[in-house]
Amino acid sequence: MSETVKLELAEVKRLSLEILTGAGFGARHAEAIANMIYRCQLDDCQSHGLFRLIISAQTIKAGKADGDALPVIAPDDGTAVTRVDAGKGMSLLSVEAAMPRLIEKTREHGVAALAVNRCFHFSALWPEVEDLAAAGLAAMAMVPSHAWVAPAGGSRGTFGTNPFAFAWPRRAALPLVFDFATSAFARGEIELYKRAGKPLPIGVAVDRDGNPTTDPQAALNGAMLTFGGHKGSALSLMIELLAGPMIDDLTSMESMAFSEGKGGAPYHGEILIAFDPAKFNGGRGVENDERAERLFAEILDQGARLPSQRRYEARARNTERGYVEISEGLHQELIGLLP
Amino acid sequence: MSETVKLELAEVKRLSLEILTGAGFGARHAEAIANMIYRCQLDDCQSHGLFRLIISAQTIKAGKADGDALPVIAPDDGTAVTRVDAGKGMSLLSVEAAMPRLIEKTREHGVAALAVNRCFHFSALWPEVEDLAAAGLAAMAMVPSHAWVAPAGGSRGTFGTNPFAFAWPRRAALPLVFDFATSAFARGEIELYKRAGKPLPIGVAVDRDGNPTTDPQAALNGAMLTFGGHKGSALSLMIELLAGPMIDDLTSMESMAFSEGKGGAPYHGEILIAFDPAKFNGGRGVENDERAERLFAEILDQGARLPSQRRYEARARNTERGYVEISEGLHQELIGLLP
Repeated sequence: MSETVKLELAEVKRLSLEILTGAGFGARHAEAIANMIYRCQLDDCQSHGLFRLIISAQTIKAGKADGDALPVIAPDDGTAVTRVDAGKGMSLLSVEAAMPRLIEKTREHGVAALAVNRCFHFSALWPEVEDLAAAGLAAMAMVPSHAWVAPAGGSRGTFGTNPFAFAWPRRAALPLVFDFATSAFARGEIELYKRAGKPLPIGVAVDRDGNPTTDPQAALNGAMLTFGGHKGSALSLMIELLAGPMIDDLTSMESMAFSEGKGGAPYHGEILIAFDPAKFNGGRGVENDERAERLFAEILDQGARLPSQRRYEARARNTERGYVEISEGLHQELIGLLP
Repeated sequence: MSETVKLELAEVKRLSLEILTGAGFGARHAEAIANMIYRCQLDDCQSHGLFRLIISAQTIKAGKADGDALPVIAPDDGTAVTRVDAGKGMSLLSVEAAMPRLIEKTREHGVAALAVNRCFHFSALWPEVEDLAAAGLAAMAMVPSHAWVAPAGGSRGTFGTNPFAFAWPRRAALPLVFDFATSAFARGEIELYKRAGKPLPIGVAVDRDGNPTTDPQAALNGAMLTFGGHKGSALSLMIELLAGPMIDDLTSMESMAFSEGKGGAPYHGEILIAFDPAKFNGGRGVENDERAERLFAEILDQGARLPSQRRYEARARNTERGYVEISEGLHQELIGLLP
C-alpha cells in the first residue's frame, strides 16, 4: 500500500475550490463540483472523490466545456417531466438547480423525471439519489459515458460504462443506496492491471476480434464487457436509450465522437426518475416501511451487507475524526494542479 | 431431443381456454390468461407458453386464488399513478383493464406508473412492456416472486427470481424488448440439472451454509444466487422494494409465507413504469429515434443480437406456418388437465 496523506475536512473543500477556480470554473460551478467531491471523499469513495479534480480540470482544458454556463430550467409544462439545459457546463449545477422542482413534481404526480441535457459528467450518481431519498422519495439515476463497452456477443466499444443508481428512503436510518457501473470493470481498473503486469479476470473484456482476453493491452485495444453477460448488456442498452435518445441527448458513441479524443469528462445527458411512495401505498407508509426494514434485517442477519453500508461507515468515521486519507501520489498530483 | 407435437395456432387458444375454464377460471380470466399463453407460445417462449397452463390450474387448486375476481381500478386522483386491485385474481386481467389508463396517464404526465395489487402472477413481463412500446412509450416492468435467491454474501432465500423487463418503441420495426430474471438461473433449470445428474455451473447457487455449490440438491436445500454478483443482487433488492413495500404489497419472503407451500403461482404485486418520449425530446422524436436506430445497427453490424430478435424471428415463422411445436411430454400433461 502506498503512503497516505491526512486531509482535514475543511482542507478537502478548500483544495477543491482552489483547483477548480484555478482551472477556470466560475464560482457556482466550482462550489457544486467541490460539494460533490467532498461528499464522495467523506465516504472514502476514492474513485469519485478528490481524484476527480484531475478530470474536472482536464475538462476545461479540453476546450469544449463552459465553466460559467448557468443551468436553464425549461418552463413548467404541467407534466411530471422537468428538463434542464446545462449549456455545456458540468452536470452538477444543473442537477442542484432542478432538484427542488423534481422533488415538488414527484410529490405532485407520484412519479416524475428530470432530464439534464448538454452536460459534461464525471461524478458518482449516488449522492443525487441519496438526496431524493432523504426527501422521502425512491429514485433511479442513469447516464451514458464513452463507448468502450461491447454489447453481449459483440466486439466493439458501443456502450458506455453506463452507471445505474437507486435509493430507497428509510425513516430511522440513512437511505439505502446503490450505484454501479454496468461495465464489469471500470476503465481505470484495466489500466491498473496493465501497469501491474497482471492478467485480467475472464469475462471483463474481449480483444479486437471479439474473443475473450485476459491481456490488459488486448482489452484496451478491443472492448470492455458489461457485468452479468447478456442481462447486463441489456441494462446498459436501456441506459443508452433512456438517458440518450429519449431525452434528446447523445449516446455513448456520439459522446465519444464529440470529444474528438481531447480528454476530460464525457458530454451527454442524464436522467433521474423519482417515486413518491405516499402516492402508491394507500396511506400505509409506516406499515410498508416496516416491511422493507424486515427485508433489510433479514439480509443483515445472514451476514450480507446492505449496498450503502460500507460508505456510511466511512462517513461516520471520517466525520468523527475530522479528516480523510488519500494516497501520497494523488496528493502530489493535486498540489501540481494548484494555480 | 424429445418428440414434439405440432399444434395449430387456433388449437393453442382452444386448448388453453378449455383447460383454464375446466380448472375454475371465469371466462374473462380464462381469456386474458389464454391470450398471454398464446403470445408466449407463438414466440417459442416455451417456459411461459402452454407450459404455464399447469401452474395456472395449480393456482386455482391451491385454494387461495379467485378465478372470477374482477379488477377494481382506484378512482383517478389526478396523479400519474394508477392502482388496480386484482382482488386475488390472476394479474393479467388487471393489467389488461388498467393498461388504457396507464397509456393515457403517460401521455398526459410524460411518465406514469401502474401498480397492480393482490394478484397471483405466473406470466412473462415482455408482452406487457411490448404493448406499451407499441403505443409509442418506453416502459419498465418488475415483480417479486418467492424467496429462493440469496443476497450477495448471504446464504438464505430472500429475494425472488425478480424479473425486470424493458421496451423501447421503434417506428419501422417491432419494439426492442428484454425481460430477464435477476436470478442467475431459473428454479426449474436447477431441477433439470438434478434430474440429469449434471453439476451446476459455479456462481448459480450456494449450499445452506452459504458456500458456492455445483450440486443441484445442495442448491435446492440452500439458495439460488442472482446474476452478476453484488450488482444483480442490488437490482433484485430494488425490485423487491418498488414492486413490494412501495406499492403496498408483499415481498418475496412474505409471498412465500402466504402460499404456505400449497403451490401455484406466487401472490404479490407488480409495477409498470412508462415514459412518453414526446414529453422529453423537445419535438425531435424523429431525429432521436434515428439516433437509437443507429445504435441498434451498430450492435447488429458486429454480429451481436438485439434482445428481442430471436423471439420475433420465431413469431414470424410460427405465424407464417400456422402452428407451434411443443414437447410430446408437455402435450400429454396438458391433455391430462382437460376436464
